[in-house]
Amino acid sequence: MPAPEPVSPNTDVRMRGFAQRATVEAATAWIDSALPAFPLLPTEPVPLQAAAGRILAAEILSTVNVPRFARSMMDGFAVRGEDTYGATPYNSLPLRIRGTCLPGVPFAGTLLPGEAVRIMTGAPLPPGADAVLPVEHTVLDGTQVLAQGEVSAGKHVAQVGEDIRTDECVLPAGRRLRPQDLGVLSSIGVGQVTVVRAPRVRILITGNELLPAGTPPAGYRIADANGPMLSALVARDGGDLLADEMIPDDRQSIREALLAPADLVLVSGGSSVGVEDHAPVLLAEEGELAIHGVAMRPSSPAGMGRLSDRLVFLLPGNPVSCLCAYDFFAGRAIRALGGRAKDWPYRRIQGTLTRKLVSTVGRVDYARVRVRGAEVEPLAISGASILSSTTRADGFIVVPADSEGSPPGATVDVFLYD
Amino acid sequence: MPAPEPVSPNTDVRMRGFAQRATVEAATAWIDSALPAFPLLPTEPVPLQAAAGRILAAEILSTVNVPRFARSMMDGFAVRGEDTYGATPYNSLPLRIRGTCLPGVPFAGTLLPGEAVRIMTGAPLPPGADAVLPVEHTVLDGTQVLAQGEVSAGKHVAQVGEDIRTDECVLPAGRRLRPQDLGVLSSIGVGQVTVVRAPRVRILITGNELLPAGTPPAGYRIADANGPMLSALVARDGGDLLADEMIPDDRQSIREALLAPADLVLVSGGSSVGVEDHAPVLLAEEGELAIHGVAMRPSSPAGMGRLSDRLVFLLPGNPVSCLCAYDFFAGRAIRALGGRAKDWPYRRIQGTLTRKLVSTVGRVDYARVRVRGAEVEPLAISGASILSSTTRADGFIVVPADSEGSPPGATVDVFLYD
Repeated sequence: MPAPEPVSPNTDVRMRGFAQRATVEAATAWIDSALPAFPLLPTEPVPLQAAAGRILAAEILSTVNVPRFARSMMDGFAVRGEDTYGATPYNSLPLRIRGTCLPGVPFAGTLLPGEAVRIMTGAPLPPGADAVLPVEHTVLDGTQVLAQGEVSAGKHVAQVGEDIRTDECVLPAGRRLRPQDLGVLSSIGVGQVTVVRAPRVRILITGNELLPAGTPPAGYRIADANGPMLSALVARDGGDLLADEMIPDDRQSIREALLAPADLVLVSGGSSVGVEDHAPVLLAEEGELAIHGVAMRPSSPAGMGRLSDRLVFLLPGNPVSCLCAYDFFAGRAIRALGGRAKDWPYRRIQGTLTRKLVSTVGRVDYARVRVRGAEVEPLAISGASILSSTTRADGFIVVPADSEGSPPGATVDVFLYD
Repeated sequence: MPAPEPVSPNTDVRMRGFAQRATVEAATAWIDSALPAFPLLPTEPVPLQAAAGRILAAEILSTVNVPRFARSMMDGFAVRGEDTYGATPYNSLPLRIRGTCLPGVPFAGTLLPGEAVRIMTGAPLPPGADAVLPVEHTVLDGTQVLAQGEVSAGKHVAQVGEDIRTDECVLPAGRRLRPQDLGVLSSIGVGQVTVVRAPRVRILITGNELLPAGTPPAGYRIADANGPMLSALVARDGGDLLADEMIPDDRQSIREALLAPADLVLVSGGSSVGVEDHAPVLLAEEGELAIHGVAMRPSSPAGMGRLSDRLVFLLPGNPVSCLCAYDFFAGRAIRALGGRAKDWPYRRIQGTLTRKLVSTVGRVDYARVRVRGAEVEPLAISGASILSSTTRADGFIVVPADSEGSPPGATVDVFLYD
């Protein structure tokens, strides 16, 4: 990824302010309205082993009963329950041991009254038996076993279809597959599932002053921070990262990159209203610039729209604004498009403010906080551009637009970064 | 992965009960005592792009200031703040436009009193300027800009080292890297980080009755459910899955598999006290069988120990017991060994029981529940073997050993599966 050359300092820079800013609610509503119905993307088959965390495209009905045969749930002896009635440690009842029954290996005959068959957990119950007497309640005595406890019919036996019945819906469409779901699918013989394709995301990093991520800063050029951050966020939200590329800050390069195949495009930098901000203009000219400028802090120069069949998110180049705009808008779209819950994946806790949290009416504030036990301390941040504020913080508070903030001692909801 | 042949039905099956069961607390304490000190595993370098979610092996100090130069935080005009004092929309103050300053491209000269330089967000502040007047508070007038608002020195300027100072600790050892951490590391020129190596985990599936995962059940043989489930759990907890293999239920095969290279070995099935249960015996003979049998339900036949330099967890073959024993014990060890928090990754909520939850004093119960809003409904489960109970449930309650359960209306803590 070669770094683009700085533009000429002679470039004419005209600048316009944002005429008006949309509310966070309006921006969120636009995203939701722009998403198609479920399944939002084409589906694809994946082997069971690769299906954890993926979203089921259609419900799964079982073609089998689980268990398919009555099986023991304990190690012990398959018996007729009534043969054990009255058995105690002081009243042992002898049963003749007829044989052995192992998982996968049934006993060949039929159990008769007064008989027992050794049985292991998971082994099929032999015909004639209706219960399992746990080994703990038995004593061996030559070819006999002495029952020292009683079991009623059905005890310690998993019945046919007890776990899952044929034709039962095992998992609904839209389910995000959990580890145990894979176990259930495996047990009904499903080795491959049809899931929603992961949203394909392209990250475009603009800014002629940027060096590739992780490069030592040099002169007045700084390393891109947003590419690695956005890549990790996209992965977290289930996106399939097609590219994380630096592109030159010119109309033609940005236009081409915007039109490359993708479900979503995230443009970092150049989202504002300066002449160097090509992406909003391109979006307005060739697609739809639905939202440009949002009443929030940071991230007020964020924008979003549509170009042909892809959603485009304009994220401010400032890293904190970029993180914030991603979390409020782009992440929501990626999660929803992939069939996940739209809500933030952050854990939410309640705590008590240790200091006053000041906010301006008319905009949503994204306030980084430290959390110590139940105490929530707003970080003193001189500028919105302090990316280290998001690494020093344990989480953040969202202050609504109609709030002036909260006094010390107020109870607040905190979203935890971890 | 060929399925092992069923053993002969003539195998002699002796069975022993558990002499005594350890408490969950004792088992947990043994795990914690068996873990070495941080960093628990060797470290390894990874590129920044692959570092999300990994655990930093050592703290990271910055070798640079961020920003390295005073830079603008707004689009507007670099000015001397005092030149704007008194400016309002009704009292425009003219400033001569000297040139332009772009990100990565400084203005060549020094700003003099009464002058302004066009500046973009992120651009270096020219010498002589001490503030940025946002474009919204200006009007262009030929070669002049009319200031219509005032800014004090330092306003809208990010100062050198304001975000990060040279030699400052940016991230502590043991940090699980967040998306924004990657951004910060990139911005200080760190392109590669040293992280704790992921714990290498080997999953051994025993049970001669088992068919490979995802295979339609046939005769008295059933498909392995635990391999896919455990694989997903290990991935969730940051383990590096070396193998998920079915091995024949014989001493020699299990011995060889236990001794193959790994940090942790999870043995599914054959964990109890029957003659077919080789793993506990092998562990006792050749290493340490520290815990065998735990006072909990399900999973009472769980065990754990050590063989040479690896931790070994014996998980019951029953899938619900396997899930439960993994979550209580093996998962904790994998997370801790990899440097993650030992606690469950499940979200915890509080709710109100809709029905009585019955439990037996003397053992910990793992009760699957449905959650609807604040209502928590214990699932009616006839047997512990019902794996679909964990897919129908939204989460689980842990009932302590000293509790008889809880009445309807009681407040309970629920761990959510999702």
